[in-house]
Amino acid sequence: MALIGVGLIGSSLARRAREFGELAAEVIASDSSQKVLDRVVELGIADRVEVDPVSAVAGADLVVLCAPVGAYAELATQIAPNLAPGVIVTDVGSTKVSVIRDVGPVLPAHTHFVPGHPLAGTEFSGPDAGFSALFEGRWTILTPPPGTDEDAVARLRLFWERTGAQVVRMDAPRHDRVLAIVSHLPHLLAFTICGTADDLATETRAEVLQFAASGFRDFTRIAASDPVMWRDVFMNNREALLEMLARFTEDAQAMARAVRWGDADYIVDKINRSRKIRKSLIEIKQA
Amino acid sequence: MALIGVGLIGSSLARRAREFGELAAEVIASDSSQKVLDRVVELGIADRVEVDPVSAVAGADLVVLCAPVGAYAELATQIAPNLAPGVIVTDVGSTKVSVIRDVGPVLPAHTHFVPGHPLAGTEFSGPDAGFSALFEGRWTILTPPPGTDEDAVARLRLFWERTGAQVVRMDAPRHDRVLAIVSHLPHLLAFTICGTADDLATETRAEVLQFAASGFRDFTRIAASDPVMWRDVFMNNREALLEMLARFTEDAQAMARAVRWGDADYIVDKINRSRKIRKSLIEIKQA
Repeated sequence: MALIGVGLIGSSLARRAREFGELAAEVIASDSSQKVLDRVVELGIADRVEVDPVSAVAGADLVVLCAPVGAYAELATQIAPNLAPGVIVTDVGSTKVSVIRDVGPVLPAHTHFVPGHPLAGTEFSGPDAGFSALFEGRWTILTPPPGTDEDAVARLRLFWERTGAQVVRMDAPRHDRVLAIVSHLPHLLAFTICGTADDLATETRAEVLQFAASGFRDFTRIAASDPVMWRDVFMNNREALLEMLARFTEDAQAMARAVRWGDADYIVDKINRSRKIRKSLIEIKQA
Repeated sequence: MALIGVGLIGSSLARRAREFGELAAEVIASDSSQKVLDRVVELGIADRVEVDPVSAVAGADLVVLCAPVGAYAELATQIAPNLAPGVIVTDVGSTKVSVIRDVGPVLPAHTHFVPGHPLAGTEFSGPDAGFSALFEGRWTILTPPPGTDEDAVARLRLFWERTGAQVVRMDAPRHDRVLAIVSHLPHLLAFTICGTADDLATETRAEVLQFAASGFRDFTRIAASDPVMWRDVFMNNREALLEMLARFTEDAQAMARAVRWGDADYIVDKINRSRKIRKSLIEIKQA
């Protein structure tokens, strides 16, 4: 297994492989940062590190792109000539239409391209943030484009099941719409409200920090995530994200109007619907 | 101590008084819901329950309004004639300008009115949700209007310190602006995004629930709060809330524009500012 990128997700896969040998016989870790690779060596979670991704993929049966999605096009172009026949190339990116657009066309015909997305993570990043149980009980979504070799899909499904994940298959555009509302938009809102607070007059800002009650504190937790990763997610799921933001903005304006005009029933109805969603999440054990 | 309302906050004060006798020699609990009072009796957290708030306040040294802020005007008018000379009347509401507007004018001159707001709570409500340690290490903000008896303020400060809270004094308009951004706006956004998700086509909605990644799940947690309480907060902090929402909406639109036009630097800058705020919170131990 060659990991291209050893941050939170890549290093968790490396650790999982170290603890459960069945996942991969040998783990090669590559990263654009020498510092990250030095740390991977110190942590002892890979069999070999390679700063050059082209060398890293040589002879690999499985290549997992774990870099920010904005780096995929160039990475795929680089590694393409060195990929072994029959290799499965997959990824862990939060956008899937863009990955199929950027990676699919440059891979040789003798490889199998099966995009994937483990819905697992924390607000921390880097090789120290990973842990082998990260994927346990979480979903991994596979989005193979039409015509993908079914045996390769089955093998990648088994791989993810061995990390402890539950695997589900979905088409890429649907994946991107669902993730836009469950993950990308919440992150955009969280980043934005932190900025809005930061723009307040100096004195108020100090008090905002002092009195960060539960609402705001929860927002800052998800706003602590990796900037480059999220920049790339936003820019590579642009259409779905902007559509969900437009819907959300309409709804927020409707709520503002209800607050302005004292439409108590409207406000209570909206809050009750939120509670129902929360209850559904608890019932299906997602919260 | 007479508690008018025995939900999460009121029942936590009752429990605290039960465990630490110095807080109050006798606890009278009043609530508009007989069911809540029956439960308070079962829980054994009050010395006496009274469905009529007028009877509850008779002879009390401290009256704490723990009902939704929209009920204060009527409650204050009802209890005013039965308040003992020298009584401290306070509250735990999340809006303070409205409370001074609604309660202040109707109280007799022989009483001391010291509005307060403990920044403590969970997404649960009702008398079963309270616990005696709820206020420990949390802030309580007192917003006495100009001319309030300083001895009454000092006594109420001591009361809150005995619940384990840190007490700070602030003028009411500033309180309402700070709370608008740290608490009221985050709740409005959380309620809204749950509604936006709920409006998606049926099939997508099922997947939204299935794949509620951390972003959305955190939002639903704060969106699970009590509808009547939050309706009243929104309607009674209208100006500050609408101003903060307007600022937020401008910022969200600027982010949308950056996403649409691929302004990577703008996006990264905003995310980095969020991380800085998060870091500040961790440094001052608010996260």
